[in-house]
Amino acid sequence: MLDPADWERFRADAHRALDDAIDYMRDVRERRVWTPVPDAVKERLSEAMPLDPAPFADVYAEFTQTILPYATGNIHPRWWGWVHGSGTPSGAIADMLAGAMNSNVGGRDHGAVYVEREVIGWFHALFGWPRSASGLLAIGTSAANLAAVLVARTKALGTAVREHGLDPQNARLTGYVSAATHACVRKAFEIAGIGSANLRVLPVDSDHRIDPGELSRAIALDRAQGLRPFFIVGNAGTVDVGAIDPLDALADLAQREQIWFHVDGAFGATAYLSERLRPKLYGIERADSIAFDFHKWLHVPYDAGCVLVRDGEMHRATFASEGPYITRMTRGIAAGEPWFTDYGPDLSRGFRALKVWFTLKEHGARKLASAIEINCDQAQRLAARLQNDPDFELVAGVELQIVCFRPHVAAGLDDATLDRVTDESVIRLQESGVAVISSTTIFGKRAMRVCITNHRTEERDLEVMLEELRRITRGAVAEARG
Amino acid sequence: MLDPADWERFRADAHRALDDAIDYMRDVRERRVWTPVPDAVKERLSEAMPLDPAPFADVYAEFTQTILPYATGNIHPRWWGWVHGSGTPSGAIADMLAGAMNSNVGGRDHGAVYVEREVIGWFHALFGWPRSASGLLAIGTSAANLAAVLVARTKALGTAVREHGLDPQNARLTGYVSAATHACVRKAFEIAGIGSANLRVLPVDSDHRIDPGELSRAIALDRAQGLRPFFIVGNAGTVDVGAIDPLDALADLAQREQIWFHVDGAFGATAYLSERLRPKLYGIERADSIAFDFHKWLHVPYDAGCVLVRDGEMHRATFASEGPYITRMTRGIAAGEPWFTDYGPDLSRGFRALKVWFTLKEHGARKLASAIEINCDQAQRLAARLQNDPDFELVAGVELQIVCFRPHVAAGLDDATLDRVTDESVIRLQESGVAVISSTTIFGKRAMRVCITNHRTEERDLEVMLEELRRITRGAVAEARG
Repeated sequence: MLDPADWERFRADAHRALDDAIDYMRDVRERRVWTPVPDAVKERLSEAMPLDPAPFADVYAEFTQTILPYATGNIHPRWWGWVHGSGTPSGAIADMLAGAMNSNVGGRDHGAVYVEREVIGWFHALFGWPRSASGLLAIGTSAANLAAVLVARTKALGTAVREHGLDPQNARLTGYVSAATHACVRKAFEIAGIGSANLRVLPVDSDHRIDPGELSRAIALDRAQGLRPFFIVGNAGTVDVGAIDPLDALADLAQREQIWFHVDGAFGATAYLSERLRPKLYGIERADSIAFDFHKWLHVPYDAGCVLVRDGEMHRATFASEGPYITRMTRGIAAGEPWFTDYGPDLSRGFRALKVWFTLKEHGARKLASAIEINCDQAQRLAARLQNDPDFELVAGVELQIVCFRPHVAAGLDDATLDRVTDESVIRLQESGVAVISSTTIFGKRAMRVCITNHRTEERDLEVMLEELRRITRGAVAEARG
Repeated sequence: MLDPADWERFRADAHRALDDAIDYMRDVRERRVWTPVPDAVKERLSEAMPLDPAPFADVYAEFTQTILPYATGNIHPRWWGWVHGSGTPSGAIADMLAGAMNSNVGGRDHGAVYVEREVIGWFHALFGWPRSASGLLAIGTSAANLAAVLVARTKALGTAVREHGLDPQNARLTGYVSAATHACVRKAFEIAGIGSANLRVLPVDSDHRIDPGELSRAIALDRAQGLRPFFIVGNAGTVDVGAIDPLDALADLAQREQIWFHVDGAFGATAYLSERLRPKLYGIERADSIAFDFHKWLHVPYDAGCVLVRDGEMHRATFASEGPYITRMTRGIAAGEPWFTDYGPDLSRGFRALKVWFTLKEHGARKLASAIEINCDQAQRLAARLQNDPDFELVAGVELQIVCFRPHVAAGLDDATLDRVTDESVIRLQESGVAVISSTTIFGKRAMRVCITNHRTEERDLEVMLEELRRITRGAVAEARG
């Protein structure tokens, strides 16, 4: 009774929506990157729950007025804020098809399950992992990192931890990350009941990488105090500057110390698809688990992340559970073991594997790798331009696709003022609608950050951005001088 | 560079996919409910990662051959397995539009954030909650229940638990559920490091409800042993039979004992939209937190669940975290506090609120409530038919939309054989393609279970199923007699 009363009318409306969506994606370059949501729209988006039905066409019209014009902006060729993927038109179609099928991929025996297995298998093969490895699609790398922490917790304490929790009789677990590691690992330690105080945060070297020697000493110190080191994180692309930890050395260390080695490769892991970039990441394939996103550098629409676990049995032992209503059969729909619910927190799960499958099938690994390489080249060229720039200076080396810089010290402003000018200029650029970059803190100083995880970006886009940012920053510097 | 080389060709391909998807949804009644994935298709779905590009039309053609025919089956009018929503055509369009916008709803200041807030606000208002309440969309109720456990953990131990974990200096936390509670609550206790042994599982009465007296005694016993009772779960619709715990009495008890009261209303909470059914659920509005799904009885495409928390500050105190790259600004894109990432585990999150918004806007609360009422009426009529049936007997009362029964004891088979016949008949019905029901265990005996969470189901569909199941079961009984 929720189906259209008139299918042909719905069909016409749906085709109009599709045409609009295609135009919207095709013509994105002609629009502002980001537009603040007007107060009047915020007002409309805080109405009471609708009680009565409305024609689909009316709802769609409201969507085009109050929602569509105020997208995040990351599909635009001049979006380089944070780490956002750009999406693809066929990814949007795949999401529509997944919605039409409406599969629940928690388990059981149907097509979507085999698609998710296939997609995971592709990445097992990429890293040369055995068929006994496992994996799960998730909302994103935050959830994937959490899953890895939980599997490593099982490895350290046995499955008894599921029953008894982190109770006094267990040794205290400790984990190790660099200061450049994403906060979601800390959050994972909090959620898992281990506590963030037991996550050792090690300083980074001048290239923003963890120092294996420091790490080794930290582990020895904890062992000497009767603690149980259980989890080492290597970054394949840190969030601020895109640094890559010495993964091979970390793998050696983890092997020697018999500690779980996890790689947070939110965006960087997918650079392994590129033969040219792969050597930068060597060692990642030796990890016990890898977390990464499809919605970042593979441009699958949000959300789609993934955790891969080398020891599939340990993964299953961490999450598998029973209930009479989820009894497994050998035939019928309740067959098809293993079920994905045995590898993660969720029983009901959508068919996010389909958009990943479409993306890899349509573009192929080589073209996706090439898009990644192009972004890295664009970042190198931008960095080269900024090397002897009158207005800006680089504040970090460029490992992959991220360029961090700030107004030149020659502007004659003190550090606190430069920090303010940096943030203000980034905001004004966003408000201009011309381009979006973000800001962060590098070794205590605020920096402008251009993260080119964008398959639509062309060289001229970066030029347009730089000229506008230069104009804005000069203005802000002049204002600061008073 | 991942955009179509020829937009008009892509447009034509996409419109064909949309037409097919609309036909697929419109004509679902003409198809088998479920079809096992043939071995040849499984083979094709285990190919190596594609290296080279392929035309979108070719990828789509492969999808129509290897994936589309093998959907779970839950959009079919004769699907009543487990608890699956049926989806809607406009939900699929909303997913396409969300894919085109490709918004990341972890936070920041853009339209999708306001849509998610609006949707959550609708349900705050439904339950009469204050504006200070909070909420988050999630994959589903499993994740929503986990979030509730974590917020309650913060309430019990303070935010220090984030730093120090569940270490010896904390009192041991204990939670309380009925035996009919979904296993995902146990999993949440495992993930949170509390341990499933600290989740007391109380027996249910003959109506599958928790006994507040028993619960009160269990709490007193734990307190006497120096433990810290912190979490009571009330079920608004148990997974096996759809029983509703005495929520008002649980709210009284939780208030008296100063314990967090959480309601798992995966499907049942949405029945609160119906004025007729609402009295069954009274007390849910007094909960400290409520978890439920949009993808079940509101038929939003998978996945979309929700957690609501009365104490928004406690919710935020559980998840909020900091990083230089997520510094909040007062203007620009990095404005727009509060951010959703401060209310859950994820930073990158898709725009799943859009399909919820479309569903409520198009159908309105009253029609959605009416669809729920119709399913309950259908279940009552099916139960009435089974009351004096020659082949089947009811094994549980019908509270909402779930009917559980099994072959009549008059078949003259022992219990173990009846269990086998039950499971075998359910599987054969699934294999017939005529209808899908599932099986479960009710008070130690296997049962056939019809869960009518389906807006496409008509009376005749249940008749068709019952006749086919009768034929199959009679055959299985005859075989068992030998």
